[in-house]
Parts: sequence; structure tokens; C-alpha cells
Amino acid sequence: MKKKKELNSASKLKIIPLGGLEEIGMNITAFEYEDSIVVVDCGLAFPDDDMLGIDLVIPDVTYLANNIDKVKGFVITHGHEDHIGALPYILKGINVPVYATRLTMGLIDHKLEEHGLLKKVKRKVVKFGQSINLGKFRIEFIKTNHSIVDAAALAIYSPAGIVVHTGDFKVDYTPVYGDAIDLQRFAEIGKKGVLALLCDSTNAERPGFTASERTLSKTFHNLFEEHKKSRIIIATFASNVDRVQQIINTAYDFGRKVVVEGRSMVNIIETARNLDCIKIPDNTLIDIDQINKYPDDRMVIITTGSQGESMAALSRMASGNHRKITIKHGDTVIFSSSPIPGNEKAVTNVINDLLQKGADVVFQDTHVSGHACQEEIKLIYTLVQPKYAVPVHGEYKHLMAQAGIAQELGIPKQNIFILKSGDILEMDDESAKVKGHVPTGEIMVDGLGVGDVGNVVLRDRQHLAENGVIIIVLALDKYSGQVAAGPDIISRGFVYVKEADELMDEARSVLTVTVDNCIDNGITDWNKLKTSMRDALGDFIWKRTKRRPMILPIIEEV
Amino acid sequence: MKKKKELNSASKLKIIPLGGLEEIGMNITAFEYEDSIVVVDCGLAFPDDDMLGIDLVIPDVTYLANNIDKVKGFVITHGHEDHIGALPYILKGINVPVYATRLTMGLIDHKLEEHGLLKKVKRKVVKFGQSINLGKFRIEFIKTNHSIVDAAALAIYSPAGIVVHTGDFKVDYTPVYGDAIDLQRFAEIGKKGVLALLCDSTNAERPGFTASERTLSKTFHNLFEEHKKSRIIIATFASNVDRVQQIINTAYDFGRKVVVEGRSMVNIIETARNLDCIKIPDNTLIDIDQINKYPDDRMVIITTGSQGESMAALSRMASGNHRKITIKHGDTVIFSSSPIPGNEKAVTNVINDLLQKGADVVFQDTHVSGHACQEEIKLIYTLVQPKYAVPVHGEYKHLMAQAGIAQELGIPKQNIFILKSGDILEMDDESAKVKGHVPTGEIMVDGLGVGDVGNVVLRDRQHLAENGVIIIVLALDKYSGQVAAGPDIISRGFVYVKEADELMDEARSVLTVTVDNCIDNGITDWNKLKTSMRDALGDFIWKRTKRRPMILPIIEEV
Repeated sequence: MKKKKELNSASKLKIIPLGGLEEIGMNITAFEYEDSIVVVDCGLAFPDDDMLGIDLVIPDVTYLANNIDKVKGFVITHGHEDHIGALPYILKGINVPVYATRLTMGLIDHKLEEHGLLKKVKRKVVKFGQSINLGKFRIEFIKTNHSIVDAAALAIYSPAGIVVHTGDFKVDYTPVYGDAIDLQRFAEIGKKGVLALLCDSTNAERPGFTASERTLSKTFHNLFEEHKKSRIIIATFASNVDRVQQIINTAYDFGRKVVVEGRSMVNIIETARNLDCIKIPDNTLIDIDQINKYPDDRMVIITTGSQGESMAALSRMASGNHRKITIKHGDTVIFSSSPIPGNEKAVTNVINDLLQKGADVVFQDTHVSGHACQEEIKLIYTLVQPKYAVPVHGEYKHLMAQAGIAQELGIPKQNIFILKSGDILEMDDESAKVKGHVPTGEIMVDGLGVGDVGNVVLRDRQHLAENGVIIIVLALDKYSGQVAAGPDIISRGFVYVKEADELMDEARSVLTVTVDNCIDNGITDWNKLKTSMRDALGDFIWKRTKRRPMILPIIEEV
Repeated sequence: MKKKKELNSASKLKIIPLGGLEEIGMNITAFEYEDSIVVVDCGLAFPDDDMLGIDLVIPDVTYLANNIDKVKGFVITHGHEDHIGALPYILKGINVPVYATRLTMGLIDHKLEEHGLLKKVKRKVVKFGQSINLGKFRIEFIKTNHSIVDAAALAIYSPAGIVVHTGDFKVDYTPVYGDAIDLQRFAEIGKKGVLALLCDSTNAERPGFTASERTLSKTFHNLFEEHKKSRIIIATFASNVDRVQQIINTAYDFGRKVVVEGRSMVNIIETARNLDCIKIPDNTLIDIDQINKYPDDRMVIITTGSQGESMAALSRMASGNHRKITIKHGDTVIFSSSPIPGNEKAVTNVINDLLQKGADVVFQDTHVSGHACQEEIKLIYTLVQPKYAVPVHGEYKHLMAQAGIAQELGIPKQNIFILKSGDILEMDDESAKVKGHVPTGEIMVDGLGVGDVGNVVLRDRQHLAENGVIIIVLALDKYSGQVAAGPDIISRGFVYVKEADELMDEARSVLTVTVDNCIDNGITDWNKLKTSMRDALGDFIWKRTKRRPMILPIIEEV
């Protein structure tokens, strides 16, 4: 890496997170150098509790749209939703090529097909060790390990220097499928001199080393041994192909047949199987409709729903709403997962429901994380020896924890950057600094609508959810301005009307008096009339119930 | 305890949980013997996520109302909301005397006063060791330890035998205030022969012994030492008077002034202070308005909000919405609490917000539980030696865990009862069996309304929350049956209208065609007309948006 003395902004590398590094979800980062922009990942986020009715959230990529001529492509690290989920939405506006490893591309293809985009988007499968040239950038894919097969780190070569982006990773010396993380390559690139390291922070608060995925092989063996006589149902993450592989291997060893249940898991296993990322012995997988042909002690059901998602297969089994599988006394249900923050209670509720149906439920020491703990993070820093540290992927507290690790390892505090969404971090080997900000944001997807639900709609939904709605209908004669009918009221979500007939009768009287007063006083302005009705009814309802339903006055002119 | 041979149902003891033993919250259990019913505790539950707009949930006590002549009183074990919170609501219908220890009664009095019931309800403060006679029962209050002062276990003496109810408890050999749990008395009663033990299950999954509350004294000392130069803000449970005592002691030792912030905490500390349950050195407590008179290193703020509750003081500080306290760089915020299941994400969000404002946040090893772990549960079983075990207080999985412990200790499986809400467990020293069921349920409180929000209203709120509402207004001429005005539509929470003008115009056309068709075909039945409009608009909206807003057709006759 040559040293240059005088650099203007144009010849610096810019790193711009577009999706909010401070939250899990919406991983998307632009790397910009002069006329070239490369975008790493394009993930979605799941809606917060207060985003009522929203299906998913995607990043606002106005900055990319405004610089469309510069954008050379999307480079994807791995196939989790928070890294690929927004692609079909974003590609509709920013149709540039997509680069990813094999299974990652398999999952992307599936999404694009669902959105009718498969033939419209250029895609290229990249092998580990291979590089692609994108404008002023060269991007090298480096093998890592993660809770999904074919995860990659990226070495991003720019005229300003090399940036290493770990993607989501762990160090697994004994992975189930494929090779261990390519630590030698991290070291080699480190030797060349690395400008910045963007490293996964998810487990930066946890000391030690994340256990190998393979350790679960023994766990499953022991559990199958212990529960030899019962039907075994195992819930895990749909995308954890290695986990499913190990369960299938154990099932095979114990002479059990396997059913895979849950739409997303069926899809991913099929994709993985087509790409030879999973090996299923002949006559092992059976269709769910054949389940009754085999005795319980010959069956394993691998299912979605390990996060307690209400519509997932396991939750439906637990609540007795699954059409094909009924939980019965003696079943063994294993959660091979840990709850994602926010899902704890939902998972506990499913566990309690399963216990009440007589199942034996195992949910401890049955999972290993896919993210690097502190010692792994230290290892990567020590191999890569970056000048600047940019902790990524995690909540703010996780990024802070990694910043602490980087400092411990001797990186000066002023060389560590915790970025906010839209921050423009400019760097070369002389200096790095946040210079300016591009507009970013969350775009909510509800059904077919992308971005048509904003804060006003959400506020209204919140209001409706809390207190329901009361509608006032008043018909006025267009010639005389006198009341032709009403005021009538109907309500929904406010109070069960049969129990509140008297209250509603009184409310109607209050409104009648209000309207009469208005008309007697010559108030003909509809807005004033509506406000008077809304205020009068609102006050009456608050006094009587201490509730504030949404009140919607409607005037019809007849 | 005399042995009787032939017993009919009438001379058996009945234990009837009325609030659902399987969930935390709504602790209320009826003990019935012939003409006498004694009710232990009367708690509320906080609403589930799907109970939109609901403030709190209280038990359906129809069974008590139907047997009002038998009900001798409420006996309360301790002052937590899930044990006393429903009292003001239930006492309005079932006005019988309330018995409790001193601080517990102080907190009950505060509630009754708020509901204007203080002069209407008979109350009696009971001392530890003291017994009260209630019909065929005698109830003895036994000292225990818990995360609130003055917690009691109960020995319930009936002609059928003695039942011991632990309440919520832990074994604290070195409590902060008052004596250790009266283990000798548990042993003495055990010696007499105990029919059944109802024992707290909350921590039945956790091995070992819960640490003494007093161990936190050293924790606080170390934290104060480490953060000598910064302002210290500590969040904890409002009702944990001993915790507040220890924080105040440490503050005093370090020469810091203390502010107590958050309405519930201010109330409880005041009640505890009036009853001498907490000792605050002179000139230590200051008013929040005096906060600026002291430098940061002389201040401690004890606050509510340790559960991330959005309206609590700490959350308002974290989001920058607290009127009097602004979090600044260098503040130390200590969570002396652990998240109650379901609150994990809210707590994490508050921590992230505080970190982003530059505070140092401490949230590990700063709390001890108030509930007994496995070794403590074994101790109580071993002292009490009950014939029957009835695990109480906890989720189903916790009750199951205690059942496992009871079995390990030699209680036969058929003598262990996990009861559901309303189960009638009949017992004497010959046998015990669930015989029948009384009606129970959850009554939702919303504002002033108790029980006027039922499933229909909740379903409507859910529907409104997910998709919003579209209202169709149509005015018909009462003589001709022809359209006088409309159909018009307005929506809320569906889509931001300015972005959907075109959609709404099309929707109006669809409705106009539908109405015209109906009228042309001589359809005058309003219900048919409404159904046609609802179906037509619903189909149109679904096709165009894949959303299902609530559609409310309203017809006005003019």
C-alpha cells in the first residue's frame, strides 16, 4: 500500500451504512470510491412491536438511487434474511448485478423468482478465493463459518486501501460442511496492510470461544439415546442446514425416518439439497402424510417455530392447531435454538403449551451460536491488524463491546468508529473521519404496499388498537342546512355494544344537543361542526369510561 | 390430627385456585371447608400482548359471589401486585375483611383509598406468629423472606388437616430488615403432620440457593467505589424496600444525597417509612428539584423503570423525555434487577439508548432473586413433610419442575397435583382428588370499565391495529329508496390517503357500481346492501393491496 500525502475527499474511500448498524436487521453498507459504489448485503428487518400490521421493513436507498450510475453491484455475504431479504424490493429500483456464493445465490434466486425478477436481474455465483472487479473495487470472497452454509467474509480492495468485512461469522475448526474459516487468508491480507476491519459484534459481550457446530452431534446422539422410545420433534432455524444435516445423520444412525415441516425449512432444505450442501441418505426423508405408517420410535420431525412464531408449525402443534401432527403424552420436543431477543416470552409460552399436552421438552444446551465470541474477535483483529476498526452487526451495546475489545488490542480510540445509519466515514491511510451524512430510513412493507404506510397511519393504528373507534354520521339538508338524519353513532373495538346500550343512548343525546346548539348558533362550517361533535363526544366518553377512542365525525349532504 | 374413616365430600377440605396457577399474576386461591371459605391473596395480572388497550386483568370470582355467605375473608401473603392488585375491584362485590401483615396492609390501604373504599372495608393487621379464626379455619402467619418486606407464609388449619402455603418466599439467613424465615415454625408444624404444601415454584428450575439480599451491600459498595466521580442512577423494583435501603445506606457511606424518582417508588417508600420498614438518615433524601444544587459525584438517583416500561422514569430519561433529569456523558446507570420474562427487549432498548447518550451502564450481577431455588424448596418440603404437594406460583414449566423435586423427595406421583384454574382439589388424610371444576376466567379492565371489553372488542381492536378501517357512508331517500348521497369512503390506519388518492377514487367507483346494481335489482334490504358493499370493496382492496382493513358500511335514511 503506497503512502500518499495530499488527498482530497474524492480519492478517499467512503463507507456508508444505509441500514442502521445499531440494530440487528437491514444490513446494507455502501463502499464508495470516486465513480464506483459497491453495496455489501441488502437485508430486511422485522417490524418492531409498535409497527402494527407491518410485514417487514426495508432500507431507504435514496442515496443509491441518486447515484445510480456509480452503483456497480450488490455483494452478499450470506443467505440470512437480514442480509438478503430486501433484495427483491431494492432491485426493482436499483437493478445492478448481484454477487454471492452458491447457497446464498440459491436462496436469492428463490426470492427473485417469487417476485418475478429472476430473468431481470444479473447474478453471478462466486467461489471462495475468487475475486470480482467492480469499477474501482476488487472484491475477494473468503471462506468463513456461520449458522448457514457458504458464508463469506469480503476483502474489499480499493485504491485507498483494503477493507476486510467479516460478514456474520464464527471460527469453527471442525465445521459440519465444507472447510474451516480461511484464517491463513485473513493473515495474508493482514500482512499486506489493512485499512479497516468491519467485524461482527453480535457476541462481543460474551467471553471465550463459540463451540463448534459439530459438538451438537454428540448432544443429539445422547438425546436420541435417552428418548429411544418416544417420537422426537426438533425445532430449529430453517436456514441452519448443518443443524438439519446433523439431526438427519443422528436419525439415520438410530433408524428413524425424518419429516421436514414448515414452509421456509422445506424450501431451504430443497435448495441446499439441489446444491449438494446437505446429504440425505436414501429412504430417510418421508412425506408428512406418511407419518402414520411408522411407529413413534421410528420418527423424527424437524420443524420451524423455534422462536415461538405464532403461525409456525411448532406453535400450531403446541396450540393443537396443526392439521397433521398432534402432540401427545410421551412426545419429546427439542428446541435446538435459543430465543432471539424479544422472542423469549413467545418461546416460553410454546414450551408451556407443549408441557401441558404431556410432551417432554428439552431446551437447554441444545444449540450453539453462529457468531464469534470475544476470543474469536480478538483472533481476527490480530490476524488482520487493521488501522481502523468499525464494529458492525449488533445492537449499540454489542458495537460498544467490540470497540472495547479493539481498544484492548491496542487500536487507538480515535481509530474506532461506531457509525450511525447514513454516516459517511471517509478514510485513507492518513486519516479517517465521519464527514457528513446521507438520508436513510426505514420503509415499511404492508401487503403489496411498499412505503405507503408512514407514521400517520401507524399512529392511527396505535390509537385504534388501544381504544377502538366511534363513528358519528350526520346528514344535513343541502338547501336548508338542517339535520336530515342523525347524528348516529357506531363503534368498533370500543366496548361491546350490548353491554353499553345506555352509554351509547346518552352519547347520542349529547351529540344531538351539540348539533342543535351549533345550528341554532348559525354554525354551518363543516369543520367546526365536526370539531364540536368530536369534542363533545370525546369529553363525555372520557368522563364516563376514562378511555379515548378515535372519534370520526362524517357529514353527508343530501 | 385424628384419623377418620368414612368421609363424604362435605367434610373434606377443598382447594380451588381461582386465578390460574399456571401463569404468573392473579394469585387467588379459595380454601373451603363445609360452610367456610377463606381466600388467600387477590392479585391482578398484566395484559398479554394481544389484549390491546387493556390496563390490567383481574380474576372472575363468580364462585365466591355465588357462595358469598361462606366467604369469611381475604388473607394476603405479601404486597406485590400479583397478590393484592385485584382487591379494590373484587372487594366492591365481595366485601369481606382483609387480613395481612403491616407493610402489606399499608400498600392495600393505599389502593383502597385510591378507590374510595378505605372506610368501607374491614381490615386487620396480623403479626407473625399470630393466628386468626375464620369460620372453620384458623390461619397462622409465619415469617418468610421475599423481595418485599413483611412477606408471610400461612398455616391453614382445618378440621381435615393443616395446609401450609409458602406465599412467595426465599430463605434469607441474613435479611436486610427483620428476621430470617421462621424455619423452626415450619418444622414444628411439619411435626404436627401436614396434609398439603402449596409451595412457590418460580425458581424451581434453578439449582442451588438464592443469594441473600444482603450480599448486594458489598456489590453496591464496590460499584460506588468504582464510579466515584460520576452521577449514579440506579433502577430497581419499586416495591423492593430492602434494596432501596441498601442503596441509601451505601449513598450515605459515600456522602451522596439521594433522589427517589417514579410515582410507584415514591409511594411505596413513603408507606414503608411511615411504618418504620426503612430507615433513612437525616439530610440524605432530597427533592428532585434540588438536584442541581449538588455536584454529580454527590448524587444518587433511585428510579423506577428497571423493566423498560415505556412510561417509567428511567425510560423517559433514556429517550430524552424526562423533564428533570438529562442523561449525560459519564453518568453511571445501574440496573439492580433482571428482566421479567417478556420485558427483555424493552430493557435492552433502554440500555442501548442510555449507552448512546454516553452513560456507562451496569446490568450484570447487580440483583438477587426473591424466590427460592431448588435447595430451598427441598428444605421447606423436608421441614414440612406434607402428604400432598401442590406446586403454585409459576408458569407450567416451573410447576412441573417443582413436581419433579417433590417426587425426588419421595412424595408419590399420585400425591402431587398441578391444578388448573377452577379445579376443585378435595382432600383429607385418606385421599386427595380433583373433583369437578368451578367457572373462572380473566376479566379485563380498561379505564373505568371492568369486564366491558370482551373477545369481540379485542378481535376488533386486533383487526383495526393490523389493517385500519374503511368506512362507507351511503344516504338513501326514505321514500324513493334511491341514493341521496354517497357512497363516500373515509379511512384511518389503512394507507396514507394522499399517497392513495387514485386507489380511493377507484374504490368509490367500485362502490357506486355495486350500489347501482343492487338498487337496479330491487335490493332494498339494508343488510344485503351493506354486505354487497363490504364484499365488493373488500375484494377490490385485497386485490390491489393484499390487505384486509375492517370495512364498515353505514346507511343513513334521509
